[in-house]
Parts: sequence; C-alpha cells; structure tokens
Amino acid sequence: MLSVTQRVEKLRELMKENGIDIYVVPTADYHQSEYVGEHFKARKFITGFTGSAGTAVITADEAGLWTDGRYFLQAERQMSGTPVKLFKMGEPEVPTIPQFIYKTLKEGGVIGFDGRTVTMDDGESYQAIANEKGGKLSYDLDLINQIWEDRPSLSTEKAFTLDVQYAGQSVAEKLERIRKTMKENEANVHLLTTLDDVCWTLNIRGNDIEFFPLVLSYAIITLEDMKVYMDKDKLGKKEQKALESDGIIFRPYNDIYEDIKELKAGDRLLLDPMRINFKIYSNIPDGVKKVKAQNPEILFKAMKNEVEIKNIRKAEIKDSIVHIKFMKWLKENHDKMTITELSASAKLDELREAQGNYLRPSFAPICAYADHAANPHYESSPETDVPLSGGNFFLTDTGAGFLEGSTDITRTYAIGDVTKEMKKHFTIVAISNLSLADAKFLHGSNGMVLDILARKPFWDRDLNFNHGTGHGVGYLLNIHEAPTGFRWLYREHEIHPLEAGMILTDEPGVYFEGEYGIRLENELLVKNGTKNEYGQFMNMEAITYVPFDLDAIDPSVMNEQEKTLLNNYHKKVYDVMAEYLDEDEKKWLKHYTREI
Amino acid sequence: MLSVTQRVEKLRELMKENGIDIYVVPTADYHQSEYVGEHFKARKFITGFTGSAGTAVITADEAGLWTDGRYFLQAERQMSGTPVKLFKMGEPEVPTIPQFIYKTLKEGGVIGFDGRTVTMDDGESYQAIANEKGGKLSYDLDLINQIWEDRPSLSTEKAFTLDVQYAGQSVAEKLERIRKTMKENEANVHLLTTLDDVCWTLNIRGNDIEFFPLVLSYAIITLEDMKVYMDKDKLGKKEQKALESDGIIFRPYNDIYEDIKELKAGDRLLLDPMRINFKIYSNIPDGVKKVKAQNPEILFKAMKNEVEIKNIRKAEIKDSIVHIKFMKWLKENHDKMTITELSASAKLDELREAQGNYLRPSFAPICAYADHAANPHYESSPETDVPLSGGNFFLTDTGAGFLEGSTDITRTYAIGDVTKEMKKHFTIVAISNLSLADAKFLHGSNGMVLDILARKPFWDRDLNFNHGTGHGVGYLLNIHEAPTGFRWLYREHEIHPLEAGMILTDEPGVYFEGEYGIRLENELLVKNGTKNEYGQFMNMEAITYVPFDLDAIDPSVMNEQEKTLLNNYHKKVYDVMAEYLDEDEKKWLKHYTREI
Repeated sequence: MLSVTQRVEKLRELMKENGIDIYVVPTADYHQSEYVGEHFKARKFITGFTGSAGTAVITADEAGLWTDGRYFLQAERQMSGTPVKLFKMGEPEVPTIPQFIYKTLKEGGVIGFDGRTVTMDDGESYQAIANEKGGKLSYDLDLINQIWEDRPSLSTEKAFTLDVQYAGQSVAEKLERIRKTMKENEANVHLLTTLDDVCWTLNIRGNDIEFFPLVLSYAIITLEDMKVYMDKDKLGKKEQKALESDGIIFRPYNDIYEDIKELKAGDRLLLDPMRINFKIYSNIPDGVKKVKAQNPEILFKAMKNEVEIKNIRKAEIKDSIVHIKFMKWLKENHDKMTITELSASAKLDELREAQGNYLRPSFAPICAYADHAANPHYESSPETDVPLSGGNFFLTDTGAGFLEGSTDITRTYAIGDVTKEMKKHFTIVAISNLSLADAKFLHGSNGMVLDILARKPFWDRDLNFNHGTGHGVGYLLNIHEAPTGFRWLYREHEIHPLEAGMILTDEPGVYFEGEYGIRLENELLVKNGTKNEYGQFMNMEAITYVPFDLDAIDPSVMNEQEKTLLNNYHKKVYDVMAEYLDEDEKKWLKHYTREI
Repeated sequence: MLSVTQRVEKLRELMKENGIDIYVVPTADYHQSEYVGEHFKARKFITGFTGSAGTAVITADEAGLWTDGRYFLQAERQMSGTPVKLFKMGEPEVPTIPQFIYKTLKEGGVIGFDGRTVTMDDGESYQAIANEKGGKLSYDLDLINQIWEDRPSLSTEKAFTLDVQYAGQSVAEKLERIRKTMKENEANVHLLTTLDDVCWTLNIRGNDIEFFPLVLSYAIITLEDMKVYMDKDKLGKKEQKALESDGIIFRPYNDIYEDIKELKAGDRLLLDPMRINFKIYSNIPDGVKKVKAQNPEILFKAMKNEVEIKNIRKAEIKDSIVHIKFMKWLKENHDKMTITELSASAKLDELREAQGNYLRPSFAPICAYADHAANPHYESSPETDVPLSGGNFFLTDTGAGFLEGSTDITRTYAIGDVTKEMKKHFTIVAISNLSLADAKFLHGSNGMVLDILARKPFWDRDLNFNHGTGHGVGYLLNIHEAPTGFRWLYREHEIHPLEAGMILTDEPGVYFEGEYGIRLENELLVKNGTKNEYGQFMNMEAITYVPFDLDAIDPSVMNEQEKTLLNNYHKKVYDVMAEYLDEDEKKWLKHYTREI
C-alpha cells in the first residue's frame, strides 16, 4: 500500500501530466451528503486524516489540509510524518482555501478538481480566481482515482421500496405535486442531485451511505417522465416494473453528466443552487433558462403526511420503550457490573433489534461518559472506551431507523451520586428543553424566533451551548433535514417558517471541558392550534417519552411554571408508556416520573 | 385652483406631448424620507388623497391610486367625484402596480416618472417591464411641477450646527471613521442621499421635513473632501466656514445629478442600494465600479456614543417629568373638567416647552381615546376629537425632540373605572413590555431572536398585535432608525445584531376594534454585560421612567417573576424621578409606583 507521501508524489506527477497547478480534494460524494460512502473518501486517502470534515489542496511544492477546531489534534497526529501541513481554519493569520489558492496560483495557472465533489458555489469561487489570474479550471478529472489502487467500488448494496403504508403517498401522487410546483415556477424540467430528494420521490431506500438508508442516484423530472440515474438492479424486477409504470426511466448512474447536455435551448430548468455540484451545473447548455429555487421536495419531505406522522409516533414509542428499559437496566446495574460506553451502546442496539422493523442506527451513536460528554461530537470507539465508574453523567445521543421512521434521542443519566452543581446544570437543561417544547406561536415564525425560549435559562445565568438547539428529522432519510431548525445565529438558508407536520429535535445541552456534558433531546411535532383574527396559532408536541433523570433534578432551581412543565411531561410519559411495560417496569417508571 | 379632474386632464396632455403612456407619482421626496415636506406632496396634488402612503398611476384612460388597508375608507371619501380609482393593496384580484403597468403598457410604450422620487429597486422593475415590451423609461421629467401652479417651494428654513456637547463627535472624527470604512471596502468615493446620514455626518439639523429636524441635502465623500448639496445659506456664515475648514465644499442642492456624471472610470463608489433614487443611480457613469453595501453611517448613527447616551438619558428624564406631571393632571382632573384628545395633546406639548431645549414633537402625536386607540395609527385631529368621558383607556404615543435627543413614549391611562377584562389586557401588555426589557442575550442576537419575549404573553393567550415590537430611535434624526428592530416576521434588511449603544423602543400593544387599544412604550438602551468563554453577554436598560398605570393592573394575571419585574421598574421610576418633583408630586408618584 502506498504511503501518504507516495500518494502525494503520484498525484503531483499526474497534475504535471495534465497541466494542473493546484488540485483540490474535498470531503464529499457527488450529492453533498452528510455521511459519504467508502468509495468517496478521497480526502482521507490523500492525507491520512480520517475526520469527517476537511479539504486537501495540493500544489507542486505544498500540500495542505484545512479543517476546523474539532479536529486539530487528530489531524496533527494522523498527518505527522506526511508532507501534508495542517491549516487551522478560523485561526488568525491562517488563509482560507480561496485566499491560499489566490496567492499560490501563477498567472495563467490551472486549478483542478473532480467537479462532482465540489459545490456550485465553491466551483464558481475557483472560477473567479482562475479568471482573475488569466488561468482556467480543469474539473473533469478524478486524479485520485488513478492513484487509489484498492479504491472501494461504488456501493452495490440492495435497495427496496418503502411501502405506501409507511410513505403515506404514492410515487404518482408525489410526482403530481412536484409537477404542479414546476408549472408554478414555469419550469418544464427539474434536476435532483440530492439523494434524500430522489429517494423520497421514488419511495425507495437503500444502503449506499453510512447510516442514512439512501441510494446513490440523480434524477431529471419532466412534465411527462422522470429519468432516474442509478444502478437499477439494486431493486428487484417487480419493483423496477412498478416504478416504470409510474413513468420512471432508469439510466446508468453516471450518464446524468452527458444527458444534462441534451437539454434544449428554451428549456426552463428548475434547480436548487444550494444542492448541485459544479460539474452538473457546468454541463447545462447555455440556452437553458435556470429557474433557481429551493427544491420543492424539501418542504414536501419536511411536512410529514398523516401516515408518516402516525408511523413516526410508533417509532418514537418503540425507541421510548428501548430507552426506558435501558435506563432501568443502567440504574439497577451500573454498580453491580462493569458497563462501558460501548457495552451500553451495544445494549441500546440489542433493545432496538427486539422492537421489530429495525433497520440500523439513524446516525453515528454518541455514548459518552463524564468528560467525554463535554465534547458534543464525541464518537464512542474502542480506543477511548471507559467504564461508567460512578459519580458522573452518562450521555447517550443515538437514534434508530425503523420502517416507521427515524428517531434521534438524547438522554443524560446520573451514574451514582452527582454534585449539587451538576444537578443545577442538569435542571437548567431540562427547563430549556421543556420551555421550547411549550412554545405557542403564530404561523410565519421560524426556528430563530423560538430559539431564545431554550437559551433563556442559560443566558440568564451567563451560560450557553455552542450548537443549534434542534434540526429537522428525515423519515428514513437524512437525520439533519432542511429547511428550518432552532438556532439563534442567523443563517440565510434556515429561515423557513415552521409548518404543521414538521418534526424537529429539541436538544439543548451544557458542556464543561474535562468534567462533564449534559444534553436532553426530544423530537417535537409541529401542529396547528387555534385559528383566529390574528392568524394561525401553532404549537409543538414532544413525541419522545423517556423520563428526564429525577436523580439529577434539583427542584430548587425551578420556578412553579417550570415544575409544572416537568410534571406534566413525566405524567404523559407514564400515561403513554405504561401499556408497553411489565409490572416491574411500570413500578420503576412510576417512581422515575413522580411529581416533584 | 384646479380640481383633481382638471389636474389629471392636464397631466394627460403633458404625457401626450412628451410621448409618455403611463406616469407614476409616488409619495416621496428625493431622499426616501418617512415624512416629506409640502413641496413633495405631488401624489396628494394629483389624487386629492392626503394619507401618508400611496402611489398614483395615470394612463390616457385610467387613473389609479394604490394604498393599504389603513387608508381605504379615507381614500374613497377623498377621491369620490374624481376620475381616480382606488386600488386596494393586498386584496385578492387587485393587481400590484407592476402587474397593472405590465398589463396596460402597449408594445414600445413609455413609462414616465420623476426619477428622483422613485427608488432604485422600483425604477429597475419598471425598466424590466419596459424592456420586455420593447419600450423605454422617461425618468427626467417632473410633469406634476408643470401643472402645480401654487406648488410650495422647497423649504428655505434655517438650519443649525449641533454642538459637539450634544453630538459627541466632531465632523472631522466622523469623516475619519467613514473614510476608514471606505478604505476597508476599497472605495474612493461614497454617495449619501439620505438626509439623516448627511445631517449626522455634518452635525447639522434643520427644519425642511415634517417632524424630523433634517436638512434637504445629498453628499459625495471622497478620501480628501466632502461635497454637500444643499442651500448653504440655511446655515450662518460662521457655521459654513467651520464646515469648510473640515474639507466640506457646498454645492447647490440639485447639482448632484450632474456632478455624479463626473465620476471617472475606475472610481470605486460605495453606495447603499436600499437608499438611493433611480435618477442618481442612472446617472452614475458606466465605468464606475459600484461597491454596494449598507451605508456605514447607519451603524455609526445607531450605536450612540458616550456623550449622546448621556444626553439621551437627560432627554428621557425630561420627558418622564412631562409624563408624570401629565398623568397626575389627568388622573386628578378628568372628572372635574372637559379634557379632549387634542387638549390633552396640547397639555403634553406645554409641559415639554417648559423643559428647555425643546425643538418640536419628534413625530405626529397620537392621542387616542377609547375605540380611537384601537387603530395603532390614529392621528388626533379636530374632526375626530372626543372628550375623555370615563370608563375607557386613553392612549398617548408622542415624542419630543430636545437638543439632548429624541424621545418616543407611549402610555395608556385608565380614565375612571375600566372592566376586569380591560385590566387583564393592560396587564398582559405590561408583562410583555417588561419581559422584553429584561432580556439577557449573547452578542450576535438580533431583534428577531428577542421578539418572542414580548409576544409570549400574547401568544400564550391566543392574542397578538399587528405591528413591530420596537424600532431604533435616531438622535434628532429619524424616529424610526435602521438597522434593527424587534420583530418576529423576517425582514431581509432588519437582521443586524443588537450592539451596545443602540436605543430601541419596546412598545407592545393590544387592540380591539370599536372598543379600546392599549400600548406601553419605553426606550431601551442596549448594553454590554458579562464577557466569558461563551462570548459577550448583553442586556438592556429601560431609560423611560413613567409608571404603568396601576389603576389598570390586575395582579392576579401576573406570576411572581412578572410582579417582581413591575415592582422593580416602579421602584426605579420613583428613585430616579423623585428629585425632579415637588412634595405633592412625589407623594402622588409614590402611590402610583407602590409595590403590588
């Protein structure tokens, strides 16, 4: 196997052969997926750095990796002894990638990259630099592919059709909705490159990406048919036939890049500039009018239909059963046997398997004890595994992909005794979670309007948490789903109003480096409430039913309203969940949902 | 005097002579001012409609006025018997102005307007329509001027220099800040067309606009000098000289339209696309690079300096004295003498005169009794004046322009007995006001993040108010000042974070048509608080010290925290204000600020 040093050398030879001065290797598949399959881990291949975020830039003399603060230590360790230098993003004096390229590119130079792995926006910024230097882009060559001898092939994992009893809407109905929006936008063609949009439209799921049950695919939808670019043999013959009868035409995965060139002058192509790679974008013929708008599928997906909601409620109850059994096991056994982060994680998975219709975890599980939980992005691993030795918090942020939908639940448990200060922090997190869930608001409000309800218990005490309060949740699709979330810092593309049928997480936390971390996460269903002369009032229902550990609640931190919120939630947990539990479990749950 | 019918006829003749098919007359001066001087009321002249918002569109066969729901009744009444038809904005089936023009303009037709009164954006939308119809624009002719025989001339009112003891910064210092920003934006020229930006920069004030003490002017700032387009004789010789010594060159008001054509190819012109009229924009030579950004003066103005803040505190105390005396007078006399909306308004003004350094009301006063107050935009007038007969609320939303700054205060008073329901609503408004003022937040938050603190007491009870919760306040400039406000509905240009030194109003209300209206408004000063590992925490201080009428507070509506907020505010009111009052007033204030 080639060393990283040898790989970089080989890449430089290929760059020279192809007249490329600077070659950019991002961490991405062709679909801007959050997790990518093994085939796409080109940046890891060329640098040795395994973290989930980072971009490599190679020149004849330099090789750099840009990544963010989460990964500085790991990247330095993994790249030591290689020619790749770490560029710490966000640190003063560290150039951004465009700044580095601008400074480094010679007059008339060529910037190269695999245009399928670069977003339209990034590609255009490279184009601007090339233009200014009288140079050009080369975006058609995947040079890494020519070096990477044992590159994992593209996934050939089987896919399957999600029955309408789970999806709630047929492909024909979905296409009708999409085409209606195309007409409203005066578009006759619509391009989809994001996997969840294609899978949602076709009611298919697969196994091509880590964690998310998606199928590698693109689509071109016209008013008459829908060309789907994927390995159709991932589906059974019967499933292919059924889709073909809905006007689906299967085409080989990579043919989209040539087919897109066949669009005709005068065609009006609906596309989402945020969700398209540079190569597809560049291959659109000049005469085609680009109608730029958010993919209509995004809102359709986000606003779950009645059947999906009924199913998601089932999935949440399944995962609540899992968590209640898990919590009881943990509370009763942590001082009787050795439980570690990983063995606890395995226990959760085992309990989920028992629930039926369980496909896989819905994202990389976080099971973090004590100071490990102070890193909100900690990932459990054999190298870092520790026993839950007592006197601290154990945080689990995990999820399940059931046929009835995806869950995303975080609980933090006191293992043995915790201090008064720790209880105070736990109680603040509980207040925050419950206060946001209790929001009542007018239609038109987005997540930014509501976020302070979760922040106020922290901000009033000079505390904060450095992550969003919540995100949309896909139905066996991406776990982080657009177009809105709970967040106080403005993001241009996250300001869509909350709509009935959306499912969002509510996951405030608090983190103390070297000590502990706390996070409590429920899923919320957005619902319509009263409608009157002021407009449509809305509210949210927590559909996750797992106690907030009363061993860690300090009632003296709460006012009467906050106590009522907690007691009401716990009463609901018991009332909803009792029927799924045996007598021993019920008795236990009664105690852990008692009034304070 | 010509009738409206004759005016429209004359306009049509002129349109024909000049080859214009559609002529647009907006309600605007050349500076996008909120209030305009008499000279600029061309739309009122051509339609007879006197409301503050509306646009007239005249064709050979049709004459239309577009206005919003506030003015439907008034416009219908004032335009009856004229050929001008009312287009009710926002109603279904009513075309927008661009839709109307698009439908009406013949192929190759000409759209005309005075380009000084039309925003860059609107002008560009007319241009797009003209292009599509193979027609063109005529934006150089003020046809109304040729008909309007007794048109009031441009204001020649005197202006004056605001001493640095009020402004806190010299012109030289301000120009240095502006030029620093120009350099950061790589601009060598900067165009100002908004009156408050020019007046702020020059530390001058005047009398050319209703209510706001501004001077009609434009400016072109370079790295060496500043050309100011105004009637310099509004200023005394000494004041002119002082400004000239700061590099100010005075030029006649209208010469900007020719001078702007003298910019050279390669010049980089910093301009604010939101604050520029179509004619100036169109006169910028092609080779000039337009650096589009928010005027840097906007943030400089909004973040008041130490001297301004010290002065504003004084102005607020002055106006609080006025309001306390007024409230006492009202409470003690409403059942002994006839007080009307207008006589109360006059009383307020009289009390303000007595405070010294009082220039004028800072906006059109609202003094509204009972059902009049249900219209948040009610303007007191002799035609609608009523006595405060008792058993209802009296709302005053008024402000003063003192040399020490502008105030904007709303109070609602119970006149005699009010019902339990009315008290409940009053109490909710008080809770809302105090909850927003109590906000603690991290730097980076904008007004949209905080707004729900004011809405929550309403939304939790299926109530709302259909206006923003608060706006920035200028220092003897515009009363509604950019770049942020408290508002839950997203507005693209109102998302600037709250910064220390900003002054914003906090003015929730509730309105019941035909019955009553309630609003309580304080000014808040944004301040830095704790700085720690989470960032810069911020808070706000209410700097208006006038009781919330305890005759209308129902303590049973409030929880303990809310009572504490009210009691703390009232204690502060008494503590700050007592020294400015006589014994009788102090005793009275003690009672009206008692603990509940």
